[in-house]
Amino acid sequence: MSRPRAAILLTGNELLRGVISDQNAPHLARELERLGFSLTRTVIVGDDLADIRAGLRAALEKADLVVTSGGLGPTHDDRTVEAIAAEAGVPLVLDEEVLGRISRWTDGVADRYGYERSRFDAGNRKQAHIPEGAHVLGIAGTAPALVVAVGDAHLVVLPGVPSELRRLWPLAPEHPALAGLFSRAQPRRQWLIRTYGIGESHVADLFAEAGGDPEGVETSICARNFEIEIDIRAEAGSEANGAAMGERMAAALGEFVFATDERSLAEIVLDLLRERGWTAATAESCTGGMVAGKLTDIAGSSAAFAGGAVVYSNELKRALLGVPADLLEAHGAVSPEVAEAMAQGARERLGADVAVSVTGVAGPGGGTPEKPVGLVYMHVASPAGGEGRRMEWPGDRAIVRARATAGALQLLRAHLVAGPAHAQP
Amino acid sequence: MSRPRAAILLTGNELLRGVISDQNAPHLARELERLGFSLTRTVIVGDDLADIRAGLRAALEKADLVVTSGGLGPTHDDRTVEAIAAEAGVPLVLDEEVLGRISRWTDGVADRYGYERSRFDAGNRKQAHIPEGAHVLGIAGTAPALVVAVGDAHLVVLPGVPSELRRLWPLAPEHPALAGLFSRAQPRRQWLIRTYGIGESHVADLFAEAGGDPEGVETSICARNFEIEIDIRAEAGSEANGAAMGERMAAALGEFVFATDERSLAEIVLDLLRERGWTAATAESCTGGMVAGKLTDIAGSSAAFAGGAVVYSNELKRALLGVPADLLEAHGAVSPEVAEAMAQGARERLGADVAVSVTGVAGPGGGTPEKPVGLVYMHVASPAGGEGRRMEWPGDRAIVRARATAGALQLLRAHLVAGPAHAQP
Repeated sequence: MSRPRAAILLTGNELLRGVISDQNAPHLARELERLGFSLTRTVIVGDDLADIRAGLRAALEKADLVVTSGGLGPTHDDRTVEAIAAEAGVPLVLDEEVLGRISRWTDGVADRYGYERSRFDAGNRKQAHIPEGAHVLGIAGTAPALVVAVGDAHLVVLPGVPSELRRLWPLAPEHPALAGLFSRAQPRRQWLIRTYGIGESHVADLFAEAGGDPEGVETSICARNFEIEIDIRAEAGSEANGAAMGERMAAALGEFVFATDERSLAEIVLDLLRERGWTAATAESCTGGMVAGKLTDIAGSSAAFAGGAVVYSNELKRALLGVPADLLEAHGAVSPEVAEAMAQGARERLGADVAVSVTGVAGPGGGTPEKPVGLVYMHVASPAGGEGRRMEWPGDRAIVRARATAGALQLLRAHLVAGPAHAQP
Repeated sequence: MSRPRAAILLTGNELLRGVISDQNAPHLARELERLGFSLTRTVIVGDDLADIRAGLRAALEKADLVVTSGGLGPTHDDRTVEAIAAEAGVPLVLDEEVLGRISRWTDGVADRYGYERSRFDAGNRKQAHIPEGAHVLGIAGTAPALVVAVGDAHLVVLPGVPSELRRLWPLAPEHPALAGLFSRAQPRRQWLIRTYGIGESHVADLFAEAGGDPEGVETSICARNFEIEIDIRAEAGSEANGAAMGERMAAALGEFVFATDERSLAEIVLDLLRERGWTAATAESCTGGMVAGKLTDIAGSSAAFAGGAVVYSNELKRALLGVPADLLEAHGAVSPEVAEAMAQGARERLGADVAVSVTGVAGPGGGTPEKPVGLVYMHVASPAGGEGRRMEWPGDRAIVRARATAGALQLLRAHLVAGPAHAQP
């Protein structure tokens, strides 16, 4: 029995025209995969009614489930519900219960901000009209999320605001009208192997040497965030094949493997710091605060991250971190010697157990034949000792900086795994 | 005469499944809009041949031009060209010139890394097969980008690697086979008004009061990066209407308008700094380096940005920035007093003309009834004086931090526009 098929439909001129970037399709896609659907396609259309209707037809083709996002608001260009009713061949009808709920909500807003309550009447009535026979999944503000049957397929109709979509989507698998569909879904078991420091084609070779995918297993090799991820999924009944593939790949990849779960790199570093009871500091030149930014992305990072110095100018490398002027003059700011002095200075001046530094040529200007754009030195210093890394990959400024940020966190991670065995602060 | 219609097709399992985020569709959409096409839809499919063919048909519906991205590589799951030939009803034929060009390229790679040249033969022959009658637009590594006629429509077939796609796409409007199509495209004139500190519904009210869109003009109001952008586009012949709408909206929005071009906020700040001949420094707590990161995103920022301090702990607020211990004790780290002391400390200790500080509760933990998650204080200090801002918006950690980063840059920008009239350093 094959897995049920699902598609995603996004609506909105801003999305279609690339004015804003979509976050909803990747989220919904991962959810649908996790729950055991096979994805057919994602379709993005604007706010034009005919385009939305055509987009619905394109999404429904061969799909058992279509999840839509956007176009549920009160204004004239929010037309998803109208398009759905037209495609389902049913009228829009006023749902009195929905009208009551959203009117109570807008009454509250009106009272709080001193608006006239009646100002919301027209919008509320529009939003309380739903396709005949539709189920209400939940309400976000004034927008009802819906479950609608269209032919043999079902639609789950969600608002476009990412936080509202994420709050309402989990109600769908629980809804009685979708129980049959979700019971047919077949989650695949997943093994994740994340590597750093090995190329994608090398991983592909190892995969081929491991014999390729056995029956019922699908392995994807994907470069993401400067890691290479090996994602192995096994259908029901093929779990042993999937597990065996995971073991073969993990053995072949050896020390390049740094994680087998979904935690972000910053989270992994912070967990290692907490295990050791250490605090960390950063000293950044070309990454300009991005390493500190990644660490502080994580809730609770203050327990293990004290702070950092962004030292763009040589003057600040001296003043904030105590990098000796003669070192800067002899080797230049982009050098292993200065990277080391920055890390040691950050440890001392910022009072941390371990510090990591980054200095490099982010470009597009500033490169020389000896020190080209993309050359980056990193250093990590702790009571367990110090170690430096050199990285040289050409690329545009954003790529060089992002790669150097990942590289510095990887250096810190590797040091935390290997280093503290030798010493304690 | 209506504008020609264009669609976008992306292929790749990682994209469809949300493993990686797409950058190509927003880029191509903006390009197609700019060049005068009307966008119909974007379709994303995986690597399955039947799904790609169905996706091609869905993208071609009502479109004069479809731009595809991805699936041009040497491996078995790169099947875009095969799908296109099948849909166009033509065979794949070996293009000897393409084979020669990509073989020279792989010979170079083989020599450089010590591989056997013959290792590439099979992949090269696969990639040198193109649909009969297709034009070669250019080559990225071993992947030929193509122009293919399908019925009355044209396809522009591009690789999925964003840097390669961006390099090859500009060749399309120049290609003789597409000359007729691009000559029918009608770029719309555009006016952009970017505001900060005013709500989307307030802007929508002002737009309604301005009489809504006149003939041939389309105004979009869009929240992006914590700004509200008013994007006005006028078709050929309606430029005067568009300009008048732009003037009415700019007048109605008054001092909320901070830009009328596409420069990033960090770029605007750096340009203002350079005009004044000033250098800036940052002092960040809850944003953890993100303000410095935004400024150093911009090439050449070192001329106006010296560096910054990320002071997550109270200890570092004292040690790096000289924030008095009694101030921290009396008011707490999240207070206007500490924000001011951080900015002044950064100016002095980091030797900058102007400094901006941020301290707040990013959450999800750490909130209290008096100082809830989302409360952020900012301060800017310069020879022209100092000014603080308070911001309180609930939200998840990432939103609070991103909004505070934008808020700090906006405070710095406003100070640079208004402040330096009164004093010079």
